[in-house]
Amino acid sequence: MKTRRILLNERPKGLPTDNTFKFTEDELPELQDGQVLLKALYISVDPYMRGRMSDAKSYVPPYKLHEPIAGGVIAEVTESRSSQLPKGSVVIGNLPWQTYIIADGKGLMPIDPNLAPLSYHLGILGMPGLTAYCGLLFIGDPKPGETVVVSGAAGAVGTVVGQIAKIKGCRVVGIAGSDDKTAYLKHELGFDEAINYKTTADIQAALAAACPNGVDVYFDNVGGEISDAVYSLLNNFARIAVCGQISLYNATSQPMGPRVEPVLLKTKSLMKGFIVSDYADRFGEAAAGLAGWLKEGKLKYEETIAEGFDQLPHAFLGLFKGENIGKLLVKVAEYSGK
Amino acid sequence: MKTRRILLNERPKGLPTDNTFKFTEDELPELQDGQVLLKALYISVDPYMRGRMSDAKSYVPPYKLHEPIAGGVIAEVTESRSSQLPKGSVVIGNLPWQTYIIADGKGLMPIDPNLAPLSYHLGILGMPGLTAYCGLLFIGDPKPGETVVVSGAAGAVGTVVGQIAKIKGCRVVGIAGSDDKTAYLKHELGFDEAINYKTTADIQAALAAACPNGVDVYFDNVGGEISDAVYSLLNNFARIAVCGQISLYNATSQPMGPRVEPVLLKTKSLMKGFIVSDYADRFGEAAAGLAGWLKEGKLKYEETIAEGFDQLPHAFLGLFKGENIGKLLVKVAEYSGK
Repeated sequence: MKTRRILLNERPKGLPTDNTFKFTEDELPELQDGQVLLKALYISVDPYMRGRMSDAKSYVPPYKLHEPIAGGVIAEVTESRSSQLPKGSVVIGNLPWQTYIIADGKGLMPIDPNLAPLSYHLGILGMPGLTAYCGLLFIGDPKPGETVVVSGAAGAVGTVVGQIAKIKGCRVVGIAGSDDKTAYLKHELGFDEAINYKTTADIQAALAAACPNGVDVYFDNVGGEISDAVYSLLNNFARIAVCGQISLYNATSQPMGPRVEPVLLKTKSLMKGFIVSDYADRFGEAAAGLAGWLKEGKLKYEETIAEGFDQLPHAFLGLFKGENIGKLLVKVAEYSGK
Repeated sequence: MKTRRILLNERPKGLPTDNTFKFTEDELPELQDGQVLLKALYISVDPYMRGRMSDAKSYVPPYKLHEPIAGGVIAEVTESRSSQLPKGSVVIGNLPWQTYIIADGKGLMPIDPNLAPLSYHLGILGMPGLTAYCGLLFIGDPKPGETVVVSGAAGAVGTVVGQIAKIKGCRVVGIAGSDDKTAYLKHELGFDEAINYKTTADIQAALAAACPNGVDVYFDNVGGEISDAVYSLLNNFARIAVCGQISLYNATSQPMGPRVEPVLLKTKSLMKGFIVSDYADRFGEAAAGLAGWLKEGKLKYEETIAEGFDQLPHAFLGLFKGENIGKLLVKVAEYSGK
C-alpha cells in the first residue's frame, strides 16, 4: 500500500515557494491492532500554517523539516483494526498531508455524513466557523446598532463573522481584496458595505465613509496598514479581536507601524489575541449556534475547492494572494459512501 | 479680592516650555448666592494634563487658550454664601490653577481633614490611587505567583500598583528612571526587582533576568521602547493595562514602533486602555481597599511637594524629566484648620 506525501522541504523566508514543499511516495507498513487506514478526502489549507513552517516559538509547534505538513483533514476509514472506527467511518482530525494515513484513532472525531456536506466540517462547522463565532461574540461582544468591521472579510472566517454580526443587528463593513469579493459580501452575504483594499487609494477615507458612526468592533484577520486605518475610527470602549495577521506572516523583518497603545488609551478600547482552542469549553454552544443559523438559512456558506492532492501547495500559496472566496480546501478523493 | 492665575499661553509643540504658561493677577467679583470663595491649598500636576494642552480630540477636552490650566485641587472655603459648604470646609475638585477661586459647589467633594493628610486625597486616596487599584485589579487581574511589571514605577500610580501586586502575592518588577527610584522601590516598597531604564544598556535582557518566569501582567504608564521590551516576555494569556504613555505625550510626529498585534495573537494576550472614571461604579470598593491597606501599614505612600504657586509650571515640567518619587504636587497655602 503506497501513500503520496508532501513534506516540508525547507523553511521559507518570506513567501513560501514551490521549493518549500517536496512530494514523495512511500510504502505504508502493515496495520497493527487498534490502527486504521485512512483515505484523505478533503484537506484544509489555512493561513496559520505559515507560522508552523517557521522555526519561531508560537502557539502551535513548528513543522519538522523533511516531515509531512499537517492540518485539518477529513478522511474515510478504508481498513480498520479498531473497534472504535469501523471501515466506512468518516473522521476529522489533525493529520499529515498524505493520500493515505495510518492512525491510531487518537484525536480523530467521527463525522455524521448526513448532517451537512462533508467539507463543511473543515469550514463553517469546523475550526473557521468556531473561530468566527467565539472571537466575534466572546471578545467583540457586538450590540445591536453597533458597527462591526472585519478584515479578510471574504475568507473562511471573515464571511462567517460578518454574517453573525448582521444576525446580531449590527452595521457590517468588510474589507477584502477584489471586486468579486466585495460584490459577494454585499449582494450575497448582506454586508452593508465592502471595501476593496487593493483598488481603494485612501482606505481610511473609504472606511470613514462606510462607518459614519465610527467602529465599535473590529475583527482582524489581516493586520498592518488596514488595521491602522480602522484604528483611526474606533469609538470609545471599542473591542478588537485579533484573529490573524496574514499581511505580516511572510514579513522577513519585524513589522513596524504606528503605535496602537495611544489609540487604545484615548478610546479606552480593548484588544485581545486569541486562537479558537482558547474557547474549547464553549464549542458546544458555538457549534449549535452555527448549525442552527445554517439550517434556518441565516448563514450562507461558500467554499473554494481545488481538486487533487497535487494542488495542495498551490492552494496554500493562493491564501496569500487573496484568491479564495470563503473557505479554501483541496478535494483529494471521492467519499465512497455516497 | 485678587487672585493669581496660570493661563495656557500657547499650545506646546513637543515638550512644554516656560512660554506655555502665563501668570496673571486679576480681581475676583463679589460672591453671589450659592457661591463659595476657595483658597487653593494643594494643586496636583499630572501627566494627562499634557494631552489637554494640545488641541487634539481626547478623552478629556483640551484646555482653552488664554484660560487657566485646571486639574485636581484641594481648597479651603474661606467665604461662603452656600448652605452646603460652610466656611472652613475643605473640598477637592477639578479647579483652575488660581490662588483663589469662586465656585458654585458643583463637582466639589468635601474632605474629612481628620482621615489622612489633606494632600493624600490628590494621591493615594484620590485619582492616582484609584487608577492603580482599578487598572491593576480589574484589567490586570493578577494571581498569586504571577509576575507583574509596572513602568513609571516610581510615580504616583506606579508606586501603588507595585505595592498592591505584592499584597496580591505576585513577583513585582518596576521600571523607573533613576538609581534613587529603583532603590526606593526595592528597599522601601518591597518590589522584587527594579530597573533603571536610563542606565541599563539592554533593557530587554535586564527584564528577562528580572522576570525568569515571563510577564503575566504589565501595567503601562510609559509606552514606547520600554513596552516593546516587556512585550517580548509576555506569557500566554497576559493582561496589559494601558494607563499612560508619557514617553509619547510630547512626540511631534506619530510614534512608530514594532507592531504589537502579532505578539498579542501569539500569546493570546489582552491589552486595554482605560481612565479611572471608567470604573466610577467601583470607586467605593477601591477607596475602601486602599484606605484599609494604608491603615494596616501594607501600603506606603510618598509625595514630592513643591512649595508655592509660582512653582506649578516647573513642577509640571518635572513630570517629563522623571524627577519625582511618588505623587508630585504643589502646596499653595497653609490649611487654617490645623
